Amino acid sequence: MTVDYAALLQTIAAEVATLAPEGAVAEYIPALARVVPDQFGMAVATVDGVVHRAGTADVPFSIQSISKLFALALALRREGEALWRRVGREPSGTPFNSLVLLERERGIPRNPFVNAGALVVTDVLCRRFLQPERAVLEFVHGLLGRSGVGIDAEVARSERRHSDRNAAIAHFMRSFGNLHGEVGAVLDAYCAHCAIAMSCAELAEAALFLAADGCQPGGTRILEAADVRRLNALMLTCGAYDAAGDFAFRIGLPTKTGVGGGILAIVPGRMSICAWSPRLDANGNSIAAAAALERFAAMAGVSIFG
Amino acid sequence: MTVDYAALLQTIAAEVATLAPEGAVAEYIPALARVVPDQFGMAVATVDGVVHRAGTADVPFSIQSISKLFALALALRREGEALWRRVGREPSGTPFNSLVLLERERGIPRNPFVNAGALVVTDVLCRRFLQPERAVLEFVHGLLGRSGVGIDAEVARSERRHSDRNAAIAHFMRSFGNLHGEVGAVLDAYCAHCAIAMSCAELAEAALFLAADGCQPGGTRILEAADVRRLNALMLTCGAYDAAGDFAFRIGLPTKTGVGGGILAIVPGRMSICAWSPRLDANGNSIAAAAALERFAAMAGVSIFG
Amino acid sequence: MTVDYAALLQTIAAEVATLAPEGAVAEYIPALARVVPDQFGMAVATVDGVVHRAGTADVPFSIQSISKLFALALALRREGEALWRRVGREPSGTPFNSLVLLERERGIPRNPFVNAGALVVTDVLCRRFLQPERAVLEFVHGLLGRSGVGIDAEVARSERRHSDRNAAIAHFMRSFGNLHGEVGAVLDAYCAHCAIAMSCAELAEAALFLAADGCQPGGTRILEAADVRRLNALMLTCGAYDAAGDFAFRIGLPTKTGVGGGILAIVPGRMSICAWSPRLDANGNSIAAAAALERFAAMAGVSIFG
Amino acid sequence: MTVDYAALLQTIAAEVATLAPEGAVAEYIPALARVVPDQFGMAVATVDGVVHRAGTADVPFSIQSISKLFALALALRREGEALWRRVGREPSGTPFNSLVLLERERGIPRNPFVNAGALVVTDVLCRRFLQPERAVLEFVHGLLGRSGVGIDAEVARSERRHSDRNAAIAHFMRSFGNLHGEVGAVLDAYCAHCAIAMSCAELAEAALFLAADGCQPGGTRILEAADVRRLNALMLTCGAYDAAGDFAFRIGLPTKTGVGGGILAIVPGRMSICAWSPRLDANGNSIAAAAALERFAAMAGVSIFG
Repeated sequence: MTVDYAALLQTIAAEVATLAPEGAVAEYIPALARVVPDQFGMAVATVDGVVHRAGTADVPFSIQSISKLFALALALRREGEALWRRVGREPSGTPFNSLVLLERERGIPRNPFVNAGALVVTDVLCRRFLQPERAVLEFVHGLLGRSGVGIDAEVARSERRHSDRNAAIAHFMRSFGNLHGEVGAVLDAYCAHCAIAMSCAELAEAALFLAADGCQPGGTRILEAADVRRLNALMLTCGAYDAAGDFAFRIGLPTKTGVGGGILAIVPGRMSICAWSPRLDANGNSIAAAAALERFAAMAGVSIFG
Repeated sequence: MTVDYAALLQTIAAEVATLAPEGAVAEYIPALARVVPDQFGMAVATVDGVVHRAGTADVPFSIQSISKLFALALALRREGEALWRRVGREPSGTPFNSLVLLERERGIPRNPFVNAGALVVTDVLCRRFLQPERAVLEFVHGLLGRSGVGIDAEVARSERRHSDRNAAIAHFMRSFGNLHGEVGAVLDAYCAHCAIAMSCAELAEAALFLAADGCQPGGTRILEAADVRRLNALMLTCGAYDAAGDFAFRIGLPTKTGVGGGILAIVPGRMSICAWSPRLDANGNSIAAAAALERFAAMAGVSIFG
Repeated sequence: MTVDYAALLQTIAAEVATLAPEGAVAEYIPALARVVPDQFGMAVATVDGVVHRAGTADVPFSIQSISKLFALALALRREGEALWRRVGREPSGTPFNSLVLLERERGIPRNPFVNAGALVVTDVLCRRFLQPERAVLEFVHGLLGRSGVGIDAEVARSERRHSDRNAAIAHFMRSFGNLHGEVGAVLDAYCAHCAIAMSCAELAEAALFLAADGCQPGGTRILEAADVRRLNALMLTCGAYDAAGDFAFRIGLPTKTGVGGGILAIVPGRMSICAWSPRLDANGNSIAAAAALERFAAMAGVSIFG
Repeated sequence: MTVDYAALLQTIAAEVATLAPEGAVAEYIPALARVVPDQFGMAVATVDGVVHRAGTADVPFSIQSISKLFALALALRREGEALWRRVGREPSGTPFNSLVLLERERGIPRNPFVNAGALVVTDVLCRRFLQPERAVLEFVHGLLGRSGVGIDAEVARSERRHSDRNAAIAHFMRSFGNLHGEVGAVLDAYCAHCAIAMSCAELAEAALFLAADGCQPGGTRILEAADVRRLNALMLTCGAYDAAGDFAFRIGLPTKTGVGGGILAIVPGRMSICAWSPRLDANGNSIAAAAALERFAAMAGVSIFG
C-alpha cells in the first residue's frame, strides 16, 4: 500500500480542527498553564529521512515525559543491562505518580516511564554525567544532527518549585536504597530534561532510530536493534501512563506521551510520528493528538497488530 | 528474509531439550498435577495454511486460560462494542486473581484476561447460549474446520471443586451489578471451557484468524480486522498475567498463556505459533515455552517491535 | 457521683427529638428499608439489674451486626483461645466489607467484627451446632433469662438474597483455607443471626455480662473476666466499623453498632447501654444513637478514658 | 483493692529478668543501635504524686515516638480543634510509615501517631514556635516542674541523616497541601524532639496530667479534661503502631510506644506507668516492656475494660 503521507496529514489536521475543544491544558505549574490551548501540529519522519508536516509542526512545546524516552536511551547506552536491576518492565495498573506499588515492591519502580522509574534513570545519569540535563540535550542534538534545541528555564524552575510529589517518590526510593544521588540534584536534572522544548518535526526526527533498528538516517548506531525492540515494547505497554492498554487497543503503535500535549509514536521499520495539542484527558494524555494518531494508524494501515 | 520454519523448530526443540528442568507443573488441582512435566511441543501455522511441528506438537493438553481468547472472540461476535462497558482493556499491575483493583474500580475488571474479566465474558456467553461451554467448543471446531476437540471432564470437575477464589471474584462483581447470571452456572461454564484439551498444532491452527485480519484460511470471516487488531493489542498488554511487560520485552509478540503450560503467540499478517511445556514460573507461565518463543522470535525476526 | 439515669435519658431523648433528621436508613435490602426512620429509643441496664428506658426502648429492631458480639461470645465459650488463630484483633483501617486487607493477610480477617471475621466466627458455630442461628438465639435467651426474642425471617431471607459481597468474602477465605464449612450454609446462619430482632431494653439486659466481669445479674458466669476485658477492648478498637477511632474519641466507651440503627455500649463495672435510631451516617452507624451515647457519656461522666 | 505498687514492680522486674532475650534493638540508625539491649526499667507515678521504681528506672533512653504525645498535647494547646481538620483519629490498619492510606485519603494522615500525623503536628509547631524542638522540651520541663531533660544531639543528627522515608511522607503531604512549612525544617524539628532522652520515672511523671483530668500534681491545668479523654482514646486505638488492637486486648490501657524501647501507659484517674527495655518485636514495640505492662495491668487490676 502506498500512502501519500503529506495528504493524509492535511486530512487529519482538517478533521481535528472540527473537533469540539475538550479537556484542559496541564495546570499544575504556571509556566505550562500559559500555553495557547487550541493548537495542533503533526509530523511524520520516514526512515528514508523525509519529514512531512501539518499544522504547527514547527512550533516548539514542552516535551515533558517524552524526555523520559531520551533519558532512558542515554542511560541504556551507558549502563547497559545493569539498569534493569533497578527498574522493572511491567505496566503499573496505577496512575503515573502513585506510591502504592512502589511500597509493595520495595522501591523498584514498575517501569522506566512512571515517574519513579524516570527518576531512577535520571539518578543513573547524575552518576554518569556532571551535567546530566546537558547530556540529555546533547544526546538529542546528536540524534538531530544539529544543535538548536534548548531547555525552557522558566518551565524547569516552575516544575522544580512544584515537585513535592516527585520529591516524595525520590526520597521513598532512596529509603529502599534505590536512589544513590542527592534527591535535590536528581530533581534538578529531572525537571530540567522534562523542560526541553521541541517541535513535532524535531521530535519525529530525533526518534527515527527507534523506527530504524537503532540507527539514525545518517547511519550512526544509537542502540543495538535488540534494545530498540525492547524500548518499543516498553512504549507500547507503559508509554501512555495508565492508558497504555487503551492506546494499544485504539492506536496500535508504541507511543510516549507528555503533559505538554505531545505524543510520539513509532512504526517499526517505517517511520516515527509526532502529534501535539495541549488539551489533556483525565490520564494526562492529549485528546486531539491521540485522536489524530488513531486516525493516522487506521488510514495508513500501520498498526503493529495487523 | 525466507526462514525454514521446520528446521528452526527442530533447532529450538533441541535447545530446549538441553535446558535444566526448572519450575513445577500447576498443582492447585489434582487433575492438572498429574501431567508428565518434561514434555515440549511446538507448532507454527502460517497464513497460507501450512503447519510445522516439533516435539509433542500433536499431544493434547489442558489449554486453561488460552480458552479466554476463544471465549472473548465468541462474546465479541455476539455482544459487539457493548462488551467494553463491562470490562476494561488496561493491564492490571497485579496478579491474575487479585481482588484489590476490582474493589477500587467497583466491579469492572481491568481486562478480559484476568480471571474477573474472563468471568464477565463467560457471563455474557451464559446469556447468549443455553450451553455456553459447548458454544466455545463448537466455535473452536468451526475455527479448525473439523470436530474432535473436547473438554476434559475430569479437569473441569476438579477445577470446579477448587474454584473458591473464582467464586469470590464472581460474587464480588455480582455485588457491583457486573455479573448477571447465577454464580454457580457461570463457574460451571468457565471451568468447562478452561478444561478444553488441544494440541499445539490445533491451537496454532485455530488461532490463525488472529494472524490473518480476522479470516480463517478457508476465507471465513471470524471477526472484523479492527477487532482482531484490538485482540492482538490486548494479548500483548495483558495476555501473560503480570508478566505481560516482560513478555513484550523478551518475545515481542501478542501472546496468551495458560497454566496447562501452553503459550499461543501471533505474528500479525504472517503466522500463529503455539509452544507447550508444563513446568511454570512464579507467574504461572511455562518456562520452556516462553524460552522457545523468545528464541523463535529472535531467530525468525518476527518481533512486532522492529 | 450519683446520676439519675432515668432523668438523664429523658433529657437526651428530648434533645435528640430536636435534631434535624439527617442520613438515611439502610437500603441495601428491602426488608430493612421499610423501617420508620424517625424513631429513637434508649435503655440503660445497671449491674444491679435495674433497667431505665426512654423513647421506643421496647420496640424490637433488626440488631444486624450487634449479633456479631453474641456470636463471638458463644464461639469463644466453645472454641476458646484456638479461635484467635483464625481471626486477628486489630482495627482494619478499611470499610467493614473490604477485601483488600484480606488479600494481603492471606485470608485471616483483621478482627471478629469486620464481616470476614464474623463469617469465620459463624463458620465455627456451624461446626459446633447443628442449627447455629438457633444456638445464637438460645444463647441470647439464656442471657435474658427468658425466651421471646426471635429471628425476623423476612429480613433473613432478604439479606440472604443480597449476600453476594459476603459470599465473595467467604469464598475468598475458603480459598485460603480459613473457612471450613460450605459457603451457603455459613451464609444462611450468618444472615439468620444478623436478623435477630431485639429492643433497646433487651439488648442492654442481654449484654450486662460485659459490664459485670462476665456474669449475668443472676450470677451465671458467661465468660471469664479476662475474656470479657478482651471483648470490651475489641469493641472499643473495632466495634464501629471504620469509625472506631472516632467513636472512642467522642464517646469513650466500647461499642458495637449495627446497620439496623442500634448501638450497644458498655461501661465496665457499671452498666450497659443501648440506643437506637434508624438513620445512618456514611460509615453505617446511627447518627442519633451515636449522638445520644456521646451526650450520655459526657453527662454521666462514664468515659473509660478519664 | 489496695495494691503495693512498689512490691508489684519488684515482682515484675524479677519475672522479666527470667525471660529469654528475644527481638533486637532498633538498628535503622547507628546511634540507637549502640544501646545495651538487656536493660529493664519501670516506674509508676500515682495521681497523688508518688513515684515507684524498679530496675533502671532512672536511666535516660531515647523516647522516640513517645515524643509524639507531648508534641500533640502542645499543638492542641495552641491550635485547638482546628488541628483535627488536618489529621484524623482512626487506626490505620497499616504499618506506621506506610504511604498507601495517605494516597487514598489525599494527604490527611489517619491519626497523629503514625509518622505522617506526627509530621503534621510538628508542622503546626513549626508555625507556632521559632524553635519547635525547644518548645517541646520546655513543655516537658513544665510538666516535670524542673529542667534537666535534654535532646541527644547525636541521635537527632543520625535520625536526620536517615530520614528519607519521613521526607517522602512529608513531601507527599505537601503535594496535597497538608504540610505548610519547608520539609527540611519540619524534619529537623521532628528528628530533634524524637531524640529527647528521658528515664522511665521522668516519663511517668511528665504524663501524669493524662491520668488526672488534664492537671499536673501541682494543680496546673495542661489540657481540658475532654481533650485528655480524647488523647487517651487515641493512645488506646493508635498508640502502638499496627499492634494497637493487640495491646488493647492484652494490656487494656492507653499506651504510646517508641522504638527506643519505652512504653508509656495511662490508668485514667489513677496513675501513669512507664516501662522500658530495648529489644523490639516486629512491630517496633518493646517485648519486655509490653510483657511487664500486661502483667502489671492484670495483677493490679487496672484495665479500663473491666
